[in-house]
Amino acid sequence: MIVVMERNATDEQIAHMIGRVEELGLKAHVIRGAERTVIAAVGIKRESMKESLASGPGVAEVVPIVAPYKVASREVKPDPTRVVAGSLSVGAGMVGVIAGPCSVESEEQIMRTARAVKAAGATALRGGAFKPRTSPYSFQGMKEKGLELLAAARAETGLAVVTEVMSTDDVELVAKYADVLQVGARNMQNYRLLEAVGKVPNPVLLKRGASATMEELLLAAEYILNEGNPNVMLCERGIRTFESHTRFTLPLATVPYLHQKTHLPIVIDPSHGTGHTPLVADMALAAIAAGADGLIVEVHPEPEKAMSDGYQSLDFGQFEKMMDRCRRVAAAVDKSLG
Amino acid sequence: MIVVMERNATDEQIAHMIGRVEELGLKAHVIRGAERTVIAAVGIKRESMKESLASGPGVAEVVPIVAPYKVASREVKPDPTRVVAGSLSVGAGMVGVIAGPCSVESEEQIMRTARAVKAAGATALRGGAFKPRTSPYSFQGMKEKGLELLAAARAETGLAVVTEVMSTDDVELVAKYADVLQVGARNMQNYRLLEAVGKVPNPVLLKRGASATMEELLLAAEYILNEGNPNVMLCERGIRTFESHTRFTLPLATVPYLHQKTHLPIVIDPSHGTGHTPLVADMALAAIAAGADGLIVEVHPEPEKAMSDGYQSLDFGQFEKMMDRCRRVAAAVDKSLG
Amino acid sequence: MIVVMERNATDEQIAHMIGRVEELGLKAHVIRGAERTVIAAVGIKRESMKESLASGPGVAEVVPIVAPYKVASREVKPDPTRVVAGSLSVGAGMVGVIAGPCSVESEEQIMRTARAVKAAGATALRGGAFKPRTSPYSFQGMKEKGLELLAAARAETGLAVVTEVMSTDDVELVAKYADVLQVGARNMQNYRLLEAVGKVPNPVLLKRGASATMEELLLAAEYILNEGNPNVMLCERGIRTFESHTRFTLPLATVPYLHQKTHLPIVIDPSHGTGHTPLVADMALAAIAAGADGLIVEVHPEPEKAMSDGYQSLDFGQFEKMMDRCRRVAAAVDKSLG
Amino acid sequence: MIVVMERNATDEQIAHMIGRVEELGLKAHVIRGAERTVIAAVGIKRESMKESLASGPGVAEVVPIVAPYKVASREVKPDPTRVVAGSLSVGAGMVGVIAGPCSVESEEQIMRTARAVKAAGATALRGGAFKPRTSPYSFQGMKEKGLELLAAARAETGLAVVTEVMSTDDVELVAKYADVLQVGARNMQNYRLLEAVGKVPNPVLLKRGASATMEELLLAAEYILNEGNPNVMLCERGIRTFESHTRFTLPLATVPYLHQKTHLPIVIDPSHGTGHTPLVADMALAAIAAGADGLIVEVHPEPEKAMSDGYQSLDFGQFEKMMDRCRRVAAAVDKSLG
Repeated sequence: MIVVMERNATDEQIAHMIGRVEELGLKAHVIRGAERTVIAAVGIKRESMKESLASGPGVAEVVPIVAPYKVASREVKPDPTRVVAGSLSVGAGMVGVIAGPCSVESEEQIMRTARAVKAAGATALRGGAFKPRTSPYSFQGMKEKGLELLAAARAETGLAVVTEVMSTDDVELVAKYADVLQVGARNMQNYRLLEAVGKVPNPVLLKRGASATMEELLLAAEYILNEGNPNVMLCERGIRTFESHTRFTLPLATVPYLHQKTHLPIVIDPSHGTGHTPLVADMALAAIAAGADGLIVEVHPEPEKAMSDGYQSLDFGQFEKMMDRCRRVAAAVDKSLG
Repeated sequence: MIVVMERNATDEQIAHMIGRVEELGLKAHVIRGAERTVIAAVGIKRESMKESLASGPGVAEVVPIVAPYKVASREVKPDPTRVVAGSLSVGAGMVGVIAGPCSVESEEQIMRTARAVKAAGATALRGGAFKPRTSPYSFQGMKEKGLELLAAARAETGLAVVTEVMSTDDVELVAKYADVLQVGARNMQNYRLLEAVGKVPNPVLLKRGASATMEELLLAAEYILNEGNPNVMLCERGIRTFESHTRFTLPLATVPYLHQKTHLPIVIDPSHGTGHTPLVADMALAAIAAGADGLIVEVHPEPEKAMSDGYQSLDFGQFEKMMDRCRRVAAAVDKSLG
Repeated sequence: MIVVMERNATDEQIAHMIGRVEELGLKAHVIRGAERTVIAAVGIKRESMKESLASGPGVAEVVPIVAPYKVASREVKPDPTRVVAGSLSVGAGMVGVIAGPCSVESEEQIMRTARAVKAAGATALRGGAFKPRTSPYSFQGMKEKGLELLAAARAETGLAVVTEVMSTDDVELVAKYADVLQVGARNMQNYRLLEAVGKVPNPVLLKRGASATMEELLLAAEYILNEGNPNVMLCERGIRTFESHTRFTLPLATVPYLHQKTHLPIVIDPSHGTGHTPLVADMALAAIAAGADGLIVEVHPEPEKAMSDGYQSLDFGQFEKMMDRCRRVAAAVDKSLG
Repeated sequence: MIVVMERNATDEQIAHMIGRVEELGLKAHVIRGAERTVIAAVGIKRESMKESLASGPGVAEVVPIVAPYKVASREVKPDPTRVVAGSLSVGAGMVGVIAGPCSVESEEQIMRTARAVKAAGATALRGGAFKPRTSPYSFQGMKEKGLELLAAARAETGLAVVTEVMSTDDVELVAKYADVLQVGARNMQNYRLLEAVGKVPNPVLLKRGASATMEELLLAAEYILNEGNPNVMLCERGIRTFESHTRFTLPLATVPYLHQKTHLPIVIDPSHGTGHTPLVADMALAAIAAGADGLIVEVHPEPEKAMSDGYQSLDFGQFEKMMDRCRRVAAAVDKSLG
């Protein structure tokens, strides 16, 4: 940690800050530069120290040197983690494909979709039973009935089930039916929920919040890992920027960046990441070329009649075609889907 | 709702979309322009209709005309709402001032702070007992013990207590001790939590998420209002932008904009909105000049030793001076603090 | 154009706006909805009309229906444009690769680089002679001497030269030496410069401004096209967002989105788009998979000693390896490099 | 400058970087921490050194310590600068008010506006003669004829004239007619233009680019100052963020932040900063409360018929009322308008 003093910091202020660093149990190295003085604080840091030092007299800024996440860090575990849940394998060379509707709407809808995405090569089924909706007046999901339908689709097709859990109250219930628990973007910093999914055996798909930094995402994963659940997949689903021609801006550099920083696998959601059906397949291809370990894609028998997210869903034909193209790109980067 | 067809949409596609509009129980007015055709859909809309129509064949975009929030809308209730909770009055001419530490840390700390902010003119006490922290390794708050200390401070000073609730599990407990329940920025779209605070009698301070739009904020308020709790204060605390010289970017145009759209009062948080002690007071003044109905400000006996947010906290002297300046600006816009 | 009236707009205001629409030579269709009235204005619009109507009494908003760009639009010219400049072909199935240093620094540097990138398969040479630098104290480029060195490198290798022009004063000079004139991101809305490059015969590489919308980018291209120069390549080089782990955020959905809207080819700059050498190659691959028509990549003999942008430059070995991988991905999407 | 090595950097890499630091003429202090090594580089830095070191082997990041701007810095000149141009005084306690139409449209329009804003207390007249417009098909300004009308308005009212210059070709011409040269947001990094306005005697109003950082803004000012023109006013006119309910997001914390960093005065543009007439006055008040040294506001005799920016212009009555309110707020912060 580097404490940078202001240019006109007094000797008294510098001495004060050296004292503060030492009070925190750290060793202070003072470097007097041509224009200002910096104090390097060496030792085992705690997160709160930075905040504390930053408000000291004459301090211009405090620059942290060490990343605050630990268990998620690639410096700690250099080998990539592969997360396996039933038919789904994600990471360490395997590109998993999770496909299905935004919401479970009916038995017919989810069964038809499960069969179609399985036939096209998907390795897991997605479908929302508990739906976080911007408006209280929108369709909120089929709840437990939706979970039962997902389980039935798994029984027939063998596809692992990925579905969202929105509340600590529902973790036990959802964990009973689902293979993978999804934590949505809006709940990425719902810490009680992160702790709760950290205590069940199911793997977790953790979506990046729409304005979360990489560090915040990795620390959210750390909440889960810290409870003892090692099976976390990180999911990039787009960030909120000034761009309005897409629903979110999908920053694929997330993939190689996170691969440097963490051993956890990275899944891309080109459906939310673009918000427009015609852009989904090209971004799925790009994700694989960038090194993604998985895809999660919205597919619906009749997107035009979907109860949610129809404008970003693929129909069966579009999904099948996308998968054919994905397989070719995956081969070109020495990976295989499935 | 206006369905805008693509320039090269076929007559068949236009006919199809007219049919879709009518299927939804709406009346279709077709307008053939110089370059393209639009279909105006008239009638009582549901949120899901827009999504459904947007994925139709030949559709370029669907433009909603009516705001999706209802109870929060100023079109529905033209008179401004004043929220009152013990010593705190916010809105309709009253500028409430909520002040106190980021976290409750000890009896001495909260008592000293309560007395000091009361003496300087604050009308409510803030203090976190349950703390949402980016890192699982950071201080997480004193929990129920913290609530007891806040209640003790209220008993002595008469200041209403404002404190955050992070989880549905804690709503009952926090509501027992606090006058106002705060929903933090990270939980703005934690819908189960919004519903839970909508069911208790306490007023709610709802903070804007770091990348929430005005519509998302008002719809989050709508979740609370829709459960029967009419006492919602909206809080602008800064948004995430490319700016890095402040912790967040504080967009004060939120104040006059929301005053046009909603009858709910608007509170500004210049502490999180800037993230730097030297910027807090000037932005508090600016907030009042912009028409804010309240302030929420972090104050600590010794910011340098605070367990959280010291870099954006005022000490007692700074807060007192800020309040003196605020009173003058409030008078200049025909309002009074307190 | 749709004029949306406020919910409580009076009949007088509605009549006034109908009059205003007709004054502008448009036909007004009035649609009285369940909650509010909208006026559809049909006819040939001019850009200024929207601004004018938007400030009318009782007007909530004015929604434009037709895109304001014309010559750049795919609705006007459905076939994709291929831009050819000497050895460089971009668009309509050809993926051009422009590579070279950020700045021309010396004869040896540019000659070695030209030979190396040519050998690895690049089809044009980049190199800055006039450099726009954030600080007046940074290296500003070799100016005309740099142009001469680029021309010498072309003479030896046959590679077309792409270089930036920063000022109307320099257009003639740069056009004499270069095959393609680059307009940098900071000058995307330097309209006098756009007009000037629209008047020379050289193709133009127009970089997207760091916070430009798609519409602003296409209208900037329109300034060039409107002067009679049809050979414009659009370049996505990343946008400014809250993300700080990359220099800019590279939104690859730009590629399929622009392919829908315009016939002009799209080039991706993964060097500026990421700002970090280790991320460049993966994003180059992703760009090709997303459908890009070209790449522009920074390559330097010794990035560590570059006078600018060393942190995002590839060395010769890295570039060669990237090209090998790019060729495989290009083949997987039925395109070829070069 | 602090060179932070990666956690697993080898001794060889560390030795290499020490050598690089010394090659640059700096002194290297090596600090071996609990988890990683950092090298503090002490001495007189040049901007390019950071870029150079950042691409070294085993380097995680390079943290600059000293701000790269010099002449603009408050560390160099602690006293605030007051810029005076005819009737206009901005800074060091004086709040100047620049008002007038977006574009000069006719003699009658500019004369009426000049008289009205003068009567209401404005101290300078704005009006665009050369207009940067997003679309080539929009009104581009009256050019020299517009400048003549502005000069005529000055002759009658005594108001100093502030007008934009878009191109180096026009600097001489505009400088002949105008008191203050405005450099627009789109040209903030048009370095040839900055150099050109740095060579004339007129004060300059430099607008912040829509996605410029504080450092980029101050370095743009540095380009002007570095040519010998000391009279630079910085103008915050809003930044581009995800917010769409305002045209730009107006971050008023810019005012106290820049007052810490620079001696140059800060002017706020609440017209572009909000993009909506009903929000302008409240944000003007907030700007003064935040400590702004000046305002620049769009005023038009009939906003509804303006050729540009009508939706964000005030009419005469609205401006007069705003000025009355501004005077009260200015008095409350111990300043006076004019």
